[in-house]
Amino acid sequence: MLPADVASSLTRVDVEQASKRIAPYVHRTPILTSSTLDDLIGLEVHFKCENFQRSGAFKMRGAANAVLQLSKAERKTGVITHSSGNHGAALALAGSLSGVPVWVVIPENASSFKRRAIERYGATIVDCGPTLDDRETMVRQVGDETGATFVSPYNDERIVAGQGTVALELIDSVPGLDEVWVPIGGGGLASGCVVALQGSGARVCGAEPELADDAYRSLAVQSIQPALPPTTIADGLRTALGTITFGILNAYRMDIRLVSETDIVAAQKLVFECLKIVVEPSSAVPLAALLGRAQDRGNSVANGASRVGVILTGGNLEFQSC
Amino acid sequence: MLPADVASSLTRVDVEQASKRIAPYVHRTPILTSSTLDDLIGLEVHFKCENFQRSGAFKMRGAANAVLQLSKAERKTGVITHSSGNHGAALALAGSLSGVPVWVVIPENASSFKRRAIERYGATIVDCGPTLDDRETMVRQVGDETGATFVSPYNDERIVAGQGTVALELIDSVPGLDEVWVPIGGGGLASGCVVALQGSGARVCGAEPELADDAYRSLAVQSIQPALPPTTIADGLRTALGTITFGILNAYRMDIRLVSETDIVAAQKLVFECLKIVVEPSSAVPLAALLGRAQDRGNSVANGASRVGVILTGGNLEFQSC
Repeated sequence: MLPADVASSLTRVDVEQASKRIAPYVHRTPILTSSTLDDLIGLEVHFKCENFQRSGAFKMRGAANAVLQLSKAERKTGVITHSSGNHGAALALAGSLSGVPVWVVIPENASSFKRRAIERYGATIVDCGPTLDDRETMVRQVGDETGATFVSPYNDERIVAGQGTVALELIDSVPGLDEVWVPIGGGGLASGCVVALQGSGARVCGAEPELADDAYRSLAVQSIQPALPPTTIADGLRTALGTITFGILNAYRMDIRLVSETDIVAAQKLVFECLKIVVEPSSAVPLAALLGRAQDRGNSVANGASRVGVILTGGNLEFQSC
Repeated sequence: MLPADVASSLTRVDVEQASKRIAPYVHRTPILTSSTLDDLIGLEVHFKCENFQRSGAFKMRGAANAVLQLSKAERKTGVITHSSGNHGAALALAGSLSGVPVWVVIPENASSFKRRAIERYGATIVDCGPTLDDRETMVRQVGDETGATFVSPYNDERIVAGQGTVALELIDSVPGLDEVWVPIGGGGLASGCVVALQGSGARVCGAEPELADDAYRSLAVQSIQPALPPTTIADGLRTALGTITFGILNAYRMDIRLVSETDIVAAQKLVFECLKIVVEPSSAVPLAALLGRAQDRGNSVANGASRVGVILTGGNLEFQSC
């Protein structure tokens, strides 16, 4: 259960409302299982495949929920965000489907693959320098010029409630889950799942790369720690928590398990070869954590969990002639 | 329609019976679409995802259909085949599920990835030299020693009828298809689809790598041409037609479109990035052909087809840290 002192007024009802609101704009994504992976982990594992979500990632849920709650005036002047990845593409698509203009500020060193997706969905791209400071300055400048409303990738209650809808779908399709595993970047997905699963009996468990362990350290010292230099292969998880997401995860006393880069690649290889689907490295982080825990415990299921869910967050990966 | 002089007595009824027979042993695989791919091709394209089939390929259909029709005595002495790929793994799994011993003769230079799959399903692996002659000699030798029955990867009516079940499922899920596109190796899948789609109004269209165009040449000169040296990246399509499959495809006057290696990789990249699923190069050959035809026609849909199916044949691909 979520303690009363959480730094957000979001409840499960907000997530349920978000789920109804965004239904025409998102896919109800499939859930896959693999007996090979179950055997490796010693648990029944249900993979919620947000790599098949529109825009290729769960981010479409939060983006649609935010865009659909804009005022009439805000819809006209549009929205702006900074993102070198899936939030930018999702906001671009949500805007395009709703007739809302979208500006996305992108660092010049962002991958051309993600940039092309944002362009394809019809957003206006604005280049900026590589630092967080460069991004924020450019967002303010373009926002001032255009009047566009800023939509944060994660530190926004509309975004958090939207991301939580994936957990509602998962427990609706697979009742009786003991745990739901998510990767942690800015914490929007993890926070949304915490809110969505209030009272469900399912525990939300976090996973983070050792090379981007800012959320782990933030919860340990009870204050938001800045992101580390972006070295992890899990490029969706390089951001720090925000005030809203830190508040929710801290109040929940979220457990976070850290994983090495080698473990992330090994888990991504298992998803690719056993489930036959394409996922980004960030998506493989919770599976890496589950495999690590199973190894620590000698594959015993003595932890009490027997049936777990894993959110596979996205599949926007460039093909390199595997 | 299939002319009366076809060198096989198979009819659609055989495929329907196969479909009922194998139902407990195979998955009804999903069908995916992509608006991006539809726009590129100028048609509505439905992808039947046999990469999600048990054993990772459509080959499970034919293998199960063959194993389930063995006599009591044959079940006891088991089956043998030669395969460096998906037929070997499928026969191993079908045998394992039915309690039938399986021997698979594998060339020493086969990929360790495919070899591991065959081992995982519990078959006995017998190594042989790299040539077709080496394989056949070893099959005879082990068959003589064990009494195991030979099950051809494609030149066997039970196999052909089993592979055809994929087309029945496809037209059941997506009525009104004008064309169903398949890659051609030994011709088991193509022949099975021809038989299955008799009288359905859907035309079966074949695709083959330029570097393995033996079926194309066989139909042109009206006699089976041997396989070329195995240079194409589409490693599932390096075999020649058999007497049964040549007979069916020749009587049907199957159209085959040839594609370059570059086009195969480009199509595989599109499947990976747009559908977010893992497919082998062989699976990408029909999409490459459709894209090539669309380009030739300037994306006009003047060919009369508006709704087509594509069989994505398999997903047994080793992950190489994409």
